[in-house]
Amino acid sequence: MSNPIDFAHSQRRRFYDELWQFLRIPSVSAKSEHDADTERAAEWVRVQLEDAGLEARTYPTPGHPVVVGAWSGAGPDAPTILIYGHYDVQPPEPLDLWNSPPFEPEIRDGRIYARGAADDKGQLFLHVKALESHLATRGTLPVNVVVLAEGEEEIGSPNLVPFVREHRARLAADTVVISDSAMFAPGLPSLLFSLRGLAYFEIHASGPSTDLHSGAYGGAIRNPANALAKVIGDLHDDDGRIAIPGFYDDILDPSPETLEGFARLPFDAAAYTGEVGAPPEGGESAFSPLERMWTRPTCDVNGLLSGYTGEGAKTVLPAKAMAKLSFRLVPGQTPERVRELLEAHLASAAPPGVELTLVELHGGRPWLASLEGPLFEAASSALEQSFGARPVLAGEGGTIPIVVELEEILGANSLLLGFALPGANMHAPNEWFATDCFERGIDTLIRLYDELAEL
Amino acid sequence: MSNPIDFAHSQRRRFYDELWQFLRIPSVSAKSEHDADTERAAEWVRVQLEDAGLEARTYPTPGHPVVVGAWSGAGPDAPTILIYGHYDVQPPEPLDLWNSPPFEPEIRDGRIYARGAADDKGQLFLHVKALESHLATRGTLPVNVVVLAEGEEEIGSPNLVPFVREHRARLAADTVVISDSAMFAPGLPSLLFSLRGLAYFEIHASGPSTDLHSGAYGGAIRNPANALAKVIGDLHDDDGRIAIPGFYDDILDPSPETLEGFARLPFDAAAYTGEVGAPPEGGESAFSPLERMWTRPTCDVNGLLSGYTGEGAKTVLPAKAMAKLSFRLVPGQTPERVRELLEAHLASAAPPGVELTLVELHGGRPWLASLEGPLFEAASSALEQSFGARPVLAGEGGTIPIVVELEEILGANSLLLGFALPGANMHAPNEWFATDCFERGIDTLIRLYDELAEL
Repeated sequence: MSNPIDFAHSQRRRFYDELWQFLRIPSVSAKSEHDADTERAAEWVRVQLEDAGLEARTYPTPGHPVVVGAWSGAGPDAPTILIYGHYDVQPPEPLDLWNSPPFEPEIRDGRIYARGAADDKGQLFLHVKALESHLATRGTLPVNVVVLAEGEEEIGSPNLVPFVREHRARLAADTVVISDSAMFAPGLPSLLFSLRGLAYFEIHASGPSTDLHSGAYGGAIRNPANALAKVIGDLHDDDGRIAIPGFYDDILDPSPETLEGFARLPFDAAAYTGEVGAPPEGGESAFSPLERMWTRPTCDVNGLLSGYTGEGAKTVLPAKAMAKLSFRLVPGQTPERVRELLEAHLASAAPPGVELTLVELHGGRPWLASLEGPLFEAASSALEQSFGARPVLAGEGGTIPIVVELEEILGANSLLLGFALPGANMHAPNEWFATDCFERGIDTLIRLYDELAEL
Repeated sequence: MSNPIDFAHSQRRRFYDELWQFLRIPSVSAKSEHDADTERAAEWVRVQLEDAGLEARTYPTPGHPVVVGAWSGAGPDAPTILIYGHYDVQPPEPLDLWNSPPFEPEIRDGRIYARGAADDKGQLFLHVKALESHLATRGTLPVNVVVLAEGEEEIGSPNLVPFVREHRARLAADTVVISDSAMFAPGLPSLLFSLRGLAYFEIHASGPSTDLHSGAYGGAIRNPANALAKVIGDLHDDDGRIAIPGFYDDILDPSPETLEGFARLPFDAAAYTGEVGAPPEGGESAFSPLERMWTRPTCDVNGLLSGYTGEGAKTVLPAKAMAKLSFRLVPGQTPERVRELLEAHLASAAPPGVELTLVELHGGRPWLASLEGPLFEAASSALEQSFGARPVLAGEGGTIPIVVELEEILGANSLLLGFALPGANMHAPNEWFATDCFERGIDTLIRLYDELAEL
């Protein structure tokens, strides 16, 4: 069998079995109790790359390991692509909302349900299997390849940039290819032209030195939970704009052509509402839903905790309250500047008797693709052959902090083509990845490597 | 030994031992896992009353049992006093803030530290020991006595009113005496002229049908945690007034004499700030701290929970958010009316895409004492003999829902004299009761029964 596509189709059953092995490893990077699992996932990826025919090595870091695989048999005149992905996953909580255990993958209605099925184990695995299909059938690849798989994407990749700087010679590439995003719609593949950035904080409000009786002290002592709620409530104005002075000053607005492209995309608000369970009416009222998701920043509470949250009524005036709060950023904004603006805002917002403390958990810069040149055409061709439809250009509301860093350090352009579908519950209970996208995704990447050889 | 005071002094060591037994029982009424403990506490009180010389019986209710003790040897012409107290306690959480285990009492610096030491096991126990001291030395009491000890005070006494109605003949009394409150200051005993009421709710905000990725959905979907924070933040205006339309309409303002009495009380804001760890600057800026604590209503968050609250950064847009929120009420207000006003306010405050649901957990009406007549003079005399200072009239910011009900059902007046000290951490970690107040409290009650015989 000399055709990589036919090979991939013939090996599907094994590919699923191997994906199941990968998804069963609870490699939750945010939780130190899972450190051994995260290390096990790295080793699993390394062995897979070796079995596919690459040289592969696991590098320790101060955090979770980095796996690098390489194949350079295409020679010095052929282009080199760097495939980036991550083997770590989001925490699965709240567990009670999963219909099947998060680390026991299960196919239901054409979907693979598991934490990491879409983000990003399943998509990283597509590349491994596409590489294997080339090497197993032809004994060679049309391009030189470096695979870079990290285990800290979900906690902001704190150790990856130093690693890439240190190993920039080994990682040198002309093009970075990343599959960690979604298609615009089922049957409608897409190429990303932008990613939003992220600035993630905890705000701690503290008042009295201990929890107090709300009867004996209520009315005298300012309640830090009420105060924190007010600070958060006041972060948006009545039009859904973020009310931090200077917050919008640095934004580079998208071009009219970009906005016209959005207007042509099919967006069915009723279907979206039905799928998500809420209407697309958050954010700034002056913008369309797609604009708000792709080109406008946000300020979302990710967690709240204060006082007594158990069964029944405890009349406590809590000593402290905590909010996890994150901003999605758009081109022109940086996490550093947003932190400065938020700090200044909180300094003026803290009422007497309540202290507000800001803790930065992680950040990532937004990214804009370079759309010129043959790179996007190569990817479009591979997607069209595999899905039977020309891809659309789409934005992505999420953040892949490493994209900007890889481009800058390696001097490469990036190509982001993802195979998850909208509503895939990345970062939520019941994450899933469509089996159809899994199978066509491998075909697409097999073809993409061929197309990239022509650049 | 024929003097009850001398007897009490001679038995102190045993009294402490017995109090320790009582405090070691984790009778947390709000938690069903402690139901057996709560029942054990009831039985312990029953046996104590019998040992003191009363007839005592435990009555089952749909919730936790009621204990009734009675002694009617003073004859039909002597007055009857009903002593009310509760043997249940608040949940001890957060446990990590306790310096010694909440159910392992310990004396440090003249204070008994334990959950329930002040609220209300320690104070209920004072009465039991005062009764015992009379009966053990004189074989009689100067008044007829009924003791009513319930196990549901901390969850709003849901079964006590039906119980009192059903047993009103057995519970008939001229005067209700309750020790479940605090002195104004160390060395300055006080009699209460008012209690605030309570209306305790949970507000649930729900948005999308599941937790979502804050990047993919942020800006499109309204975040229920942000929305709940805004609703809570907007419950107060910039002057600390509660911004629910109609909220203040029903309030009966205190008399000028009452307010003048407050102005004469020593209130040291700097000392208060030092003790509590926050300045007395919450609530309505137009009122003094004592006015705000005793005569003005409040709206305090008691708990907040939403999204991810563990270690690290999870970029989730939560599907739901919850706040426990309670109002302290003042004369003229009722929990029922406040619920109506809050419901109407929330109906107009819910933004599109977020549903707000109100759950009422419990309520209690405010109380005003009848200050006329010899009852307060009898109590003042007992307090002055025991503490060496005339008591002051004070308000109490907390709520004892049963007071109004007992007065109405039994046709009795109430006398509230408490022996906790300010800062006793009732409802908070490290609850304590001063040993000096414990010892003088028994003396006071021994004398009070004598004084009440003269009425």
